[in-house]
Amino acid sequence: IQSKLPGVSTTIFSVMSKLAAEHNAINLSQGFPDYPCDPKLTELVNKAMKDGYNQYAPMPGNNFLKETIAEKVAKLYQVEYNPDTEITVTAGGTQAIFTALAAIINPGDEVIIFEPAYDSYAPTIKLLGGLVKTYELAPPNYGIDWDMVKKLFTSSTRMIILNSPQNPTGSILSEEDMKALIKLINGTDILILSDEVYEHLIFDDQKHKSVMLFPELRERSFVVASFGKLLHATGWKLGYCLAPAQLTKEFRKVHQFNVFSVNSPMQQAIADYIKEPGNYTGITSFFEEKRNYFRGLLAESRFELLPCNGSYFQCASYHKISDEKDTDFSIRLIKEFGVATIPVSAFYQKATDHKIIRFCFAKENSTLAMAAEKLKNV
Amino acid sequence: IQSKLPGVSTTIFSVMSKLAAEHNAINLSQGFPDYPCDPKLTELVNKAMKDGYNQYAPMPGNNFLKETIAEKVAKLYQVEYNPDTEITVTAGGTQAIFTALAAIINPGDEVIIFEPAYDSYAPTIKLLGGLVKTYELAPPNYGIDWDMVKKLFTSSTRMIILNSPQNPTGSILSEEDMKALIKLINGTDILILSDEVYEHLIFDDQKHKSVMLFPELRERSFVVASFGKLLHATGWKLGYCLAPAQLTKEFRKVHQFNVFSVNSPMQQAIADYIKEPGNYTGITSFFEEKRNYFRGLLAESRFELLPCNGSYFQCASYHKISDEKDTDFSIRLIKEFGVATIPVSAFYQKATDHKIIRFCFAKENSTLAMAAEKLKNV
Ligand SMILES: CSCCC(=O)C(=O)O
Ligand SMILES: CSCCC(=O)C(=O)O
Repeated sequence: IQSKLPGVSTTIFSVMSKLAAEHNAINLSQGFPDYPCDPKLTELVNKAMKDGYNQYAPMPGNNFLKETIAEKVAKLYQVEYNPDTEITVTAGGTQAIFTALAAIINPGDEVIIFEPAYDSYAPTIKLLGGLVKTYELAPPNYGIDWDMVKKLFTSSTRMIILNSPQNPTGSILSEEDMKALIKLINGTDILILSDEVYEHLIFDDQKHKSVMLFPELRERSFVVASFGKLLHATGWKLGYCLAPAQLTKEFRKVHQFNVFSVNSPMQQAIADYIKEPGNYTGITSFFEEKRNYFRGLLAESRFELLPCNGSYFQCASYHKISDEKDTDFSIRLIKEFGVATIPVSAFYQKATDHKIIRFCFAKENSTLAMAAEKLKNV
Repeated sequence: IQSKLPGVSTTIFSVMSKLAAEHNAINLSQGFPDYPCDPKLTELVNKAMKDGYNQYAPMPGNNFLKETIAEKVAKLYQVEYNPDTEITVTAGGTQAIFTALAAIINPGDEVIIFEPAYDSYAPTIKLLGGLVKTYELAPPNYGIDWDMVKKLFTSSTRMIILNSPQNPTGSILSEEDMKALIKLINGTDILILSDEVYEHLIFDDQKHKSVMLFPELRERSFVVASFGKLLHATGWKLGYCLAPAQLTKEFRKVHQFNVFSVNSPMQQAIADYIKEPGNYTGITSFFEEKRNYFRGLLAESRFELLPCNGSYFQCASYHKISDEKDTDFSIRLIKEFGVATIPVSAFYQKATDHKIIRFCFAKENSTLAMAAEKLKNV
């Protein structure tokens, strides 16, 4: 059979996590915590199952959860999303991204993405017959020159994917970025897919500039969020998509035939849990401390740390250590030094290699300390 | 914005379940049980969460679960599927169907489906730019004339979707059907998507003729199964897809960018649970008794019961009662008589109306009895 995605192989996250396990390496590659989620939360799942939430949830999501999401975003961003028509619960952020693209992209449509980028964007666009127009960001700041973005516009430009805080670089979009973007798309019908799964992971008292804060963006945006990232339970695969009613209508047409609905007891439990904002508001300082701790540990190594404004990833350059390709270097890190990371070239379709690797610091401090000990030997 | 699925509205299952709730009607529409799943099973989920299965499962599925699935199908169908390369755990049967189609169908490809059909098939094919070639089955037996199927073949025929036991009709494919199909596709490269989510729900000592039993079919088939249907937990949204390595490879390319992986603690719990076949082998007689009970109750009504060889659906003709459209009739059933069903025209793209409605009998006997009382008044 002829492959629809001939260039695609297994996602880098699976490859590195598998290698890490095989070589018994400390896994700082794939983005997930190595500490437990709150037992209060798992107890709520247990309760929801006992209370009988074991059959299909409503297709767009548990009503109580959708209302709780509406309250959360109203509080955080002073915006109103209607639970009935503008909020859809998904099987994780990735499914929300896939579904938004599948609902909108027709063969020949162009989508602008900023690389390095989460590795699902480009293949999903291609699978749908869309064309990926890539803006390559460069270290150390990974900033955007919006005049250059404008040069990518054609009459086929259908969507722009934003991701702030960004995976893998930890860079964030500023107020100026958002204003430049507004100016750029003014008068066009270009839509926005804003991947905000790290919305709470933004440091040094900076504020997350969600598209939700800008009416000119909000009215044309799908906003994707992740409960896995928020609640330290990435394996539950739950997230949501916010979008104006007209966009949500199209989103749900696909959603209902993609997964129909998502895990019922966990939706109920998450609603109970996040109803109490105190259950998650500590997450920002929690991860800021981890970032600071990890950066402190690596200061004594030969790695050169890049800025990290958000997300739970820290990028580092190894150009003082080796001029190997980053894929080779990261495999050697696993085999010889016992630490798994992600080579940042994996986030570029052209495998652009700036000699940078990505560490996930969503780990116990003891794990980070052990990893740093090993990394100091490099 | 221009819709990619202009003709599509909210799936009939959501519409009827919502109407049922609004009118406080007995809900025999959407297919899900109204009794609890086994507390042993929910206890295993609780254990899995406590044991720390809260982060990303491996992309293709929990290893232990994939091995347990391999054992289960080996025992049931005397076939070997390799857990590493031929089994993928999905967010329900619907996601498996969507993903298999997305992995294979290119714009212009034709897919043959048999209607009445589960309502995701046709829109999913269209979303991908495929063309739906429809074979309309007719009551009361909904049998297939394979010579007529052959007439639908063109050089663009890419796939045939099978569904046995069939939703909504409860009809099943026989050994003769399978042999006729083998003859038909011999020498072509047509693939098969076999939706077998009701594999265990087949009655009167008949045997399920899975495509897995026929090497000529198995080698070109995606087989879709559902834990929700098997374990009375439709809200957990877990299922799986079996396919030869080459097909699984393409399936996973899409799967990893659609949902990445699926619910981790529940995968672990289901593996623990189905490891013990005694935990599910009673399901066939359990539902056969429900079918018999429900048919017995309706014998005293003016509905004419169609044959039901499998699935947990019973179809009935109301032509002696009314000549209303089935959509109107089923809405009146909810409003005036307090029983929700599904009009079978919803399973035909052309809304072909044979004056037949579908009842789900996966309900407590007391629920079925109450519903029958109301239905006798019709
Ligand atoms: C869905 S697996 C990847 C998790 C993640 O966001 C990352 O490691 O970048
Ligand atoms: C995924 S909702 C539909 C459940 C079902 O299989 C049916 O009612 O036909």
